[in-house]
Amino acid sequence: MAELAAVLTPGQVAVDEPMRTAYATDQGPVLDPQLPLAVVFAESVEDVQHVVLSCAKHKVPIVARGAGTGVSGGAHASAGCIVLSLERMNRILQLNVDDETAVVEPGVVNADLNAAVAEHGLMYAPDPASYKMSTIGGNVATNAGGLRCAKYGVTRDSVLALDVVLADGSLIHTGHQTFKGVAGYDLTALLVGSEGTLGIVVGVTVRLRYLPRDVQTVAAFYPDFRAAAAGVLAVGKARVQPAIMEMLDAGTLAQLDELYGSDLGERGQALLLIQTDGFGAAAEAALVREVLVAGGATMMAEANAEAERLVEMRRSSRGDEVDNEYRVGEDVAVPRSRLVDYVAALEAMAATHNVQLKVVAHAGDGNLHPTFWVDRVDMEVDADAMARLNMALDDSIDAALEMGGTITGEHGVGQYKLRWLGLEQPGPVRELEHRIKELFDPAGIFNPGKAI
Amino acid sequence: MAELAAVLTPGQVAVDEPMRTAYATDQGPVLDPQLPLAVVFAESVEDVQHVVLSCAKHKVPIVARGAGTGVSGGAHASAGCIVLSLERMNRILQLNVDDETAVVEPGVVNADLNAAVAEHGLMYAPDPASYKMSTIGGNVATNAGGLRCAKYGVTRDSVLALDVVLADGSLIHTGHQTFKGVAGYDLTALLVGSEGTLGIVVGVTVRLRYLPRDVQTVAAFYPDFRAAAAGVLAVGKARVQPAIMEMLDAGTLAQLDELYGSDLGERGQALLLIQTDGFGAAAEAALVREVLVAGGATMMAEANAEAERLVEMRRSSRGDEVDNEYRVGEDVAVPRSRLVDYVAALEAMAATHNVQLKVVAHAGDGNLHPTFWVDRVDMEVDADAMARLNMALDDSIDAALEMGGTITGEHGVGQYKLRWLGLEQPGPVRELEHRIKELFDPAGIFNPGKAI
Ligand SMILES: Cc1cc2nc3c(=O)[nH]c(=O)nc-3n(C[C@H](O)[C@H](O)[C@H](O)COP(=O)(O)OP(=O)(O)OC[C@H]3O[C@@H](n4cnc5c(N)ncnc54)[C@H](O)[C@@H]3O)c2cc1C
Ligand SMILES: Cc1cc2nc3c(=O)[nH]c(=O)nc-3n(C[C@H](O)[C@H](O)[C@H](O)COP(=O)(O)OP(=O)(O)OC[C@H]3O[C@@H](n4cnc5c(N)ncnc54)[C@H](O)[C@@H]3O)c2cc1C
Repeated sequence: MAELAAVLTPGQVAVDEPMRTAYATDQGPVLDPQLPLAVVFAESVEDVQHVVLSCAKHKVPIVARGAGTGVSGGAHASAGCIVLSLERMNRILQLNVDDETAVVEPGVVNADLNAAVAEHGLMYAPDPASYKMSTIGGNVATNAGGLRCAKYGVTRDSVLALDVVLADGSLIHTGHQTFKGVAGYDLTALLVGSEGTLGIVVGVTVRLRYLPRDVQTVAAFYPDFRAAAAGVLAVGKARVQPAIMEMLDAGTLAQLDELYGSDLGERGQALLLIQTDGFGAAAEAALVREVLVAGGATMMAEANAEAERLVEMRRSSRGDEVDNEYRVGEDVAVPRSRLVDYVAALEAMAATHNVQLKVVAHAGDGNLHPTFWVDRVDMEVDADAMARLNMALDDSIDAALEMGGTITGEHGVGQYKLRWLGLEQPGPVRELEHRIKELFDPAGIFNPGKAI
Repeated sequence: MAELAAVLTPGQVAVDEPMRTAYATDQGPVLDPQLPLAVVFAESVEDVQHVVLSCAKHKVPIVARGAGTGVSGGAHASAGCIVLSLERMNRILQLNVDDETAVVEPGVVNADLNAAVAEHGLMYAPDPASYKMSTIGGNVATNAGGLRCAKYGVTRDSVLALDVVLADGSLIHTGHQTFKGVAGYDLTALLVGSEGTLGIVVGVTVRLRYLPRDVQTVAAFYPDFRAAAAGVLAVGKARVQPAIMEMLDAGTLAQLDELYGSDLGERGQALLLIQTDGFGAAAEAALVREVLVAGGATMMAEANAEAERLVEMRRSSRGDEVDNEYRVGEDVAVPRSRLVDYVAALEAMAATHNVQLKVVAHAGDGNLHPTFWVDRVDMEVDADAMARLNMALDDSIDAALEMGGTITGEHGVGQYKLRWLGLEQPGPVRELEHRIKELFDPAGIFNPGKAI
């Protein structure tokens, strides 16, 4: 602490319990509750370097943190750690309109970057539903996906270069300021998605895309979830690439109705929300409607603006729920052709294990977020509930893997999903990952017990 | 040789001099001519594993080779090496139409994959101009770009998973069969672009895209090259994202006229070729035309088909020229806003050093291929010519780096560009790359002296 104080101001180091508690966890389920020794707020690259050097010297683990909206426990405090918050490093350093790039500090909030570039007709494409809160640094560290990724790709596809503080306190610059570049190994891509285990991201050069002139939104209600999943495939067969293709089941519709006083649940048991964008948006939307109606959908008749409001509601569909031991949101992905089967399998699991289920999906990418839960009140009368919940979770992972899927499409392994990682990646691959970790961080001070 | 013969058939191991010579170089300039001990043609993953194990045992370097169309010397023979050709492993193993993915052996030729998926309305997007010859394995190993990359991204953006034989002969599988997946580190992205120095790619899972229904081609002639470069920026300012945006200078037009008997050179001193695709193609092309005419372009009046023929000619614009010591094709990229400046700088360099210059560019990505050359006949009367050529090359690299660019946008460092790598990447980054190399290949048998 004395060493930190030598360089940082008192306002940058919090040791009081409320702060330590507030920064002890992200929004993922907590398996191993820990309080950090302190929360440190970096305001510059030099601050980060100083914190890393001090912690390295005393072998104190460092958990980097953006907005703490992660849902895999990647930003949960590790035993005896310091939480290093990047949220105050929130300046857009360069906005190169003609280059269609921007250079930002890691704490810039996704929505703020988008607001700043929108006036120039540009956008930063990756838009996790948390975009109003989550930071570009956190998005980079998790390789965040989002709604528009169906068309525009994930975070990695928009990151050109990184400034990273390594475990020895040194600062390196990876990548290139140009759209393309293949000099040396792709360290940028290796660092994207590494969840704070290889280095601290202190600067990000992103590629921007053009804000589409026209956006058309299609809302299709279905009598059941499986029919909606079939709709996703039908749009693909029509060879239309929507920007957004989100699927919401009956449980999610009920929740939105409760939150917003809407009547979605009366209109159908599942909703497929599709946005097309660009110069062909109207033609694409017309074809999408045709294909979906042929597949049994009831189209929402209201105007585009109303459908767009649904997309906004979808973006907030996690609501205020924070996952905990009674409620776990998942993040599997399956090959697109298995969407219908997987949705059916999920429904069967919920019934078998007698647990609650709701599902939203970035369906265009085959990326599903089932949430399984048991009511707290159940727990008191039903000691079994927790075991049932965990069985449902395990089954849903097994089923995804059996269908050629992954245990995490976009949220990251963090702490919570470590128990399943071995099911997806065999020993030799994991060993390679651990050796890369050792190479970058021999003392293991960066986010121990996470990601790999 | 005896060990290889224990598993491989005689037809798989060539030791005759014509074959060793034919496989000694790719299409890049040769700095250090070497003949391989043998050329080995793998026909299966097991073959590759056997070759790697045998070579590891005897510390014989292995140079992997696809079609040998590389232009940086990445597939040049190293001293005392075996060239391991993957060209016979050319089967499309899976074509998952509903998943919009394919699994291929490394020797599948890019154009063959595209032909196979086209009947299903799909395409494999990355299309290096060498697509009729180059292999998917070679494309992966170089992270090849191409024409359509302006809109659809480079090879890395289309590769989901890899099967790779490591230096200890083991086979690993990286990545995922789904569009998205973030379990563990992104080893797939690390291996893409590693130019055969980290492992041998023996299987590739690619994501496919939708073949566009409509493609519109715009051909715009300019009085000079700089005006064409300004046209590229104008299209960007109009917020139109073409699929293809290629720029050809007067030297290239003259060459095409010679090859095809066309009259491009009479129409202008530079040509901008733009393709829009998808449902909005016509509207986009109309806006592109408007913007280009406003910038002083003369539009080609002929029908779309004629303009499309120009794109095909552009794809072949390298012609039969193989780079050599008198002629070097480069591959710099600059931030888009510097395109005009860079083009001006190139013209000035050619004049200063009295060397010949022609340029084609994947202009949408700011990726330029200047070719500098001196005539062989010059060499005899002018001992200085070679020094002048090298000065022009060095200047062009310096200028690109000064403008925030890179020494290689898509061709890779290979052997030829190693001398410039240190100008782009400082010591610590290169050291990190070397340590990653050591981790994967401690004995250094994979493609020594290349890429990093
Ligand atoms: C309502 C809601 C909706 C969501 N929707 C999506 C979605 O659509 N798609 C999606 O992918 N995710 C989604 N998420 C998950 C989460 O928002 C993302 O993972 C996001 O990228 C995390 O950003 P953050 O700034 O909150 O990072 P944090 O949660 O603070 O950290 C996430 C991880 O990154 C590391 N990290 C953070 N900053 C840095 C840094 N500068 N350097 C190194 N490591 C760092 C942390 O150690 C941790 O491992 C959602 C979450 C919520 C709560
Ligand atoms: C006419 C022409 C046009 C071109 N246009 C473009 C273009 O538009 N964009 C572009 O990016 N490039 C272009 N190139 C360069 C070249 O075609 C690409 O680099 C291509 O990806 C090389 O593929 P290949 O199969 O020929 O690989 P090779 O030349 O055989 O090898 C290239 C590199 O990859 C390694 N390698 C090959 N196969 C494997 C494997 N299975 N496992 C591990 N390592 C392997 C080799 O060791 C070498 O380092 C062009 C070349 C020519 C001649």
